[in-house]
Amino acid sequence: MEKAISEIRQLLGDDGISTDDEDLRSHGYSEWSSINIDRLPTAVAFPNSTTDVATIAEICYKYKVPMIPYSGGSSVEGHFSASFGGVSVDFMNMNNIVEFHPEDMDIVVQPSVSWMDMNDKIKDSGLFFPVDPGPPAKIGGMIATNCSGTNAVRYGTMKDWVVNLTVVLADGRILKTRKRPRKSSAGYNLNGLITGSEGTLGFVTEATLKLAHIPEETGVAVTTFPTMRDAAKAATQVIHQGIPVGAVELLDDVQMDVINQMGGTGRQWKPLPTLFFKFSGTKAGVNDNIEGVRQIVYQNRGGDFEIEQDKAKQGALWSARKEALWSMMCLRKSGNEVWSTDVAVPLSKVPDLVEVSKDDLNRLGLFGSMLGHIGDGNFHETVLFDGEKEHEMVTECVHAMVYRALEMDGTCTGEHGVGLGKKTFLEEEVGKESLQVMRTIKAALDPRWIMNPGKILDP
Amino acid sequence: MEKAISEIRQLLGDDGISTDDEDLRSHGYSEWSSINIDRLPTAVAFPNSTTDVATIAEICYKYKVPMIPYSGGSSVEGHFSASFGGVSVDFMNMNNIVEFHPEDMDIVVQPSVSWMDMNDKIKDSGLFFPVDPGPPAKIGGMIATNCSGTNAVRYGTMKDWVVNLTVVLADGRILKTRKRPRKSSAGYNLNGLITGSEGTLGFVTEATLKLAHIPEETGVAVTTFPTMRDAAKAATQVIHQGIPVGAVELLDDVQMDVINQMGGTGRQWKPLPTLFFKFSGTKAGVNDNIEGVRQIVYQNRGGDFEIEQDKAKQGALWSARKEALWSMMCLRKSGNEVWSTDVAVPLSKVPDLVEVSKDDLNRLGLFGSMLGHIGDGNFHETVLFDGEKEHEMVTECVHAMVYRALEMDGTCTGEHGVGLGKKTFLEEEVGKESLQVMRTIKAALDPRWIMNPGKILDP
Repeated sequence: MEKAISEIRQLLGDDGISTDDEDLRSHGYSEWSSINIDRLPTAVAFPNSTTDVATIAEICYKYKVPMIPYSGGSSVEGHFSASFGGVSVDFMNMNNIVEFHPEDMDIVVQPSVSWMDMNDKIKDSGLFFPVDPGPPAKIGGMIATNCSGTNAVRYGTMKDWVVNLTVVLADGRILKTRKRPRKSSAGYNLNGLITGSEGTLGFVTEATLKLAHIPEETGVAVTTFPTMRDAAKAATQVIHQGIPVGAVELLDDVQMDVINQMGGTGRQWKPLPTLFFKFSGTKAGVNDNIEGVRQIVYQNRGGDFEIEQDKAKQGALWSARKEALWSMMCLRKSGNEVWSTDVAVPLSKVPDLVEVSKDDLNRLGLFGSMLGHIGDGNFHETVLFDGEKEHEMVTECVHAMVYRALEMDGTCTGEHGVGLGKKTFLEEEVGKESLQVMRTIKAALDPRWIMNPGKILDP
Repeated sequence: MEKAISEIRQLLGDDGISTDDEDLRSHGYSEWSSINIDRLPTAVAFPNSTTDVATIAEICYKYKVPMIPYSGGSSVEGHFSASFGGVSVDFMNMNNIVEFHPEDMDIVVQPSVSWMDMNDKIKDSGLFFPVDPGPPAKIGGMIATNCSGTNAVRYGTMKDWVVNLTVVLADGRILKTRKRPRKSSAGYNLNGLITGSEGTLGFVTEATLKLAHIPEETGVAVTTFPTMRDAAKAATQVIHQGIPVGAVELLDDVQMDVINQMGGTGRQWKPLPTLFFKFSGTKAGVNDNIEGVRQIVYQNRGGDFEIEQDKAKQGALWSARKEALWSMMCLRKSGNEVWSTDVAVPLSKVPDLVEVSKDDLNRLGLFGSMLGHIGDGNFHETVLFDGEKEHEMVTECVHAMVYRALEMDGTCTGEHGVGLGKKTFLEEEVGKESLQVMRTIKAALDPRWIMNPGKILDP
């Protein structure tokens, strides 16, 4: 390990690697995470280029030193924990838009580009990148977790937007998965394999991403319901009727109350189960869609269908959705911990899962809020708890929700990824043989098991 | 080999395996294919279930006998050729819809289900499967080639519609990649890896597919242009302006003339470069989109923008697009061969590629038509030729087009797949290291290299 660090320092210079306590801690611990471990990385490297990453990999491969990719640091399942120590590879210096091809509707970026900054920089072109996870997320981590967000019901998830990837393998080999066609059937889909592999198969050092057109017209609507089941039923009915909403998000009464308490949105919301809708398309299409949703909302005991079509004012109406997670985090008292988890189930199971999970929180007397990308059958539970007294209870509650989702033919994670936190569920979900195939692939591409070891699966 | 056949016969019965000349020939040769070889499979097996397939695999694994999946038989790059003899596994008895979950918007099917039959069976539910390759295609082959079709510009390609796959590996192990969530970030994306692997990693014996809503309103429009470049420019401009067309297809003058000659559409078309558009959405949205397209068409020297919004009459207007390939095939004289190929390039390169490729056909005096899923940058060239005299010239012409596509940062195949026919281009396209990673994955999952050997890549 010492030798590896010294060789990396020799090649990357003093700024290229750090063993400062603060750096180690910030790269091995996260207050966002549902899981943290005692161990920290031994060093943090700061490559400036794909070649630098390959150099780091060659050295670590030689000395069998674990490597852990790091970009936004906002993942919640311990993805960048240093389970076996090793070198955290922070892409902070690789944060450039390399090429922008508006005429081809794609963009070439480095892993530490923020999706929000990127969208801001290219907005005059009329194009945008539609995958919208939490604001701190960066492209590298977004690829690693196959993330999504509120727009997924309309635009799909991260894997649907990757045109090609430059990847550095565990032994330092560099590959580029494809050229720049928007569509291809040539050879194995390495984009699809690397996306979602959580840094366990290699480092993504550059990515070409598809872009979409900024819709001509947008709208935001908010409406409340007496119960979570009513809200979930209305949301799934919108999807069943094929109304092409831009997003449909469910926030529970607790979440709305928390947003009120934190006061970040400049208005008071009814502390009731609430659906937030986004609409996009042509002016006439948006109007049609709004009318369709309004009818479904009223049929499901929804009230106060509040709609905003003025672009400048839509942000205010969407603000509660945007502030949801931050409000929960702000509410956290000193010593309290947060556990944020997600599952996804087939559409028809959503109302059941939401209701039972809500009851479970209440039954256990836990303080947690629920928030769902309900059009994908995907939803989150965020629990604030006393780390010493309630840890076991929260674990029980989260695990029960995951097993319930699996029983309903769902998944243990719709968008957060497996990391450290969900490893125990993967075999139950995909079966022994699928897990074995994943292991075979991992062992074939990373025979020394040094790429982000301990995440997703074990040897 | 003899032992393998006899063991399979023992377990599957006499109807389970055939060595009849006619069966061997129909499973080893295709008049649609750009490439055929002299060798045929030694036997054709007809499994009735996943278990049967696993039995066949176990036996073939034991005796190192190649296995070749077969469903629709309409692929064009020699995907089901028996390069090394072996057993062709024909899924004709596995052609059932296993489960249909309209409430979850998905369907569970066996590999020999026809996508057209499936859509016909479920149409009363208001749902449909949007991936639309050639009519004879079946789900198994559609997954194998990561196919697409005219709807891809709106709905994406096959890989975007796979929820889970049941796969039999080379050694007979059975795995199911996922449960039934519409979205998941749990573990490696085996759906994405198997889809497009052309039967070289395992047999797909069952698939759960997402379904989409049949749009409320549809429209079809047809318009002609003086040159291919004008037509291609108009098409790419429609995409650049973000008009969400359901499809935009380019047919060249030769293709339109052939359709007229064959007379299958009941009308005469102008023998000019022609764009076919599909529109879908709400009534108002469709009207908006039609107006947007109409303007672009006129700006690009298009004429006679013919539009049909009556659902019953849209088929007639779309008929020329539908009859395109069949018309070419019908025109084929005895002894003539057909070479159908496809490439895809970044959007901005489409007008150049189309024009140069057209000039190339003319320069060489070859009889070929061009047809493009132009909104994806994907297009086809179909050449009819004298197999003895012109083979070399056609090879030169097709290869020149592929290399041109690669130089333009494109792909050697947008939707047909690599098979036997495009193997020589794959390294040029993805690079040595990516190809080596594909080989590593292949060797890890199929160490005896018996799953459809000779396709995509060699050891």
